[in-house]
Amino acid sequence: MQFLHTMVRVTDLQASLHFYRDALGLEVLRTQEVPQGRFTLVFLAAPGDARAQVELTYNWDPQDYGRARNFGHLAYAVDDIYATCQRLQAHGVQIVRPPRDGYMAFVRSPDHISIELLQRGAPLEPKQPWVGMPNIGTW
Amino acid sequence: MQFLHTMVRVTDLQASLHFYRDALGLEVLRTQEVPQGRFTLVFLAAPGDARAQVELTYNWDPQDYGRARNFGHLAYAVDDIYATCQRLQAHGVQIVRPPRDGYMAFVRSPDHISIELLQRGAPLEPKQPWVGMPNIGTW
Repeated sequence: MQFLHTMVRVTDLQASLHFYRDALGLEVLRTQEVPQGRFTLVFLAAPGDARAQVELTYNWDPQDYGRARNFGHLAYAVDDIYATCQRLQAHGVQIVRPPRDGYMAFVRSPDHISIELLQRGAPLEPKQPWVGMPNIGTW
Repeated sequence: MQFLHTMVRVTDLQASLHFYRDALGLEVLRTQEVPQGRFTLVFLAAPGDARAQVELTYNWDPQDYGRARNFGHLAYAVDDIYATCQRLQAHGVQIVRPPRDGYMAFVRSPDHISIELLQRGAPLEPKQPWVGMPNIGTW
């Protein structure tokens, strides 16, 4: 038995690629357009970590997917949580739980999927602007 | 950057362990009780595949987590999709999308998290009772 992927439904494929690929830093492994089903699948993963993937399902016909709390988040370890959060901010992503402790941060996808970022190894030294940045909303 | 886990919130920890561990076949890697936060965390993974984990968050005070469609499912490859579905059924889990094609099945956790099961390698030969079994609900 082996974990393959987490699937999330997205309402705007370009906005989701901007978030998961450009801002978060995942790599697109493959894209599959299925015209007869009117949907597109995009599989992404952390660079060099293709075994655990995220599958984006984009239905061409608009749907309201809502949001709930039974699904919590996807978690990734990162080499430099400050650099990751800076890149996310530079792409317009709000850091809803800033890495005040040099260890943990949360952001949300355009479709309200929470992403937890954890500093690999020991926490970094707390520093500005992160240490003084408040939480925003929930994650 | 490396994928760590998918977190889901559960309303009944014993029912969730029955589902994820006993019926689905994941292994418990560690359990963390946090009395000051009134929650328990349980980390599970497919046997021998500890890098991609599922984190169950059980808040001791009851909450309604709802359900939505923005989160889709968790997917696992299995060695024998019929044996996996039989074990799930034997533990009282309804097969909402039976493996009629010898390749794909869906079940749902007690908190409505969809799990996709995919036969590793080539599909198995279609056979009864699966081939004649209808879908039930959505996933």
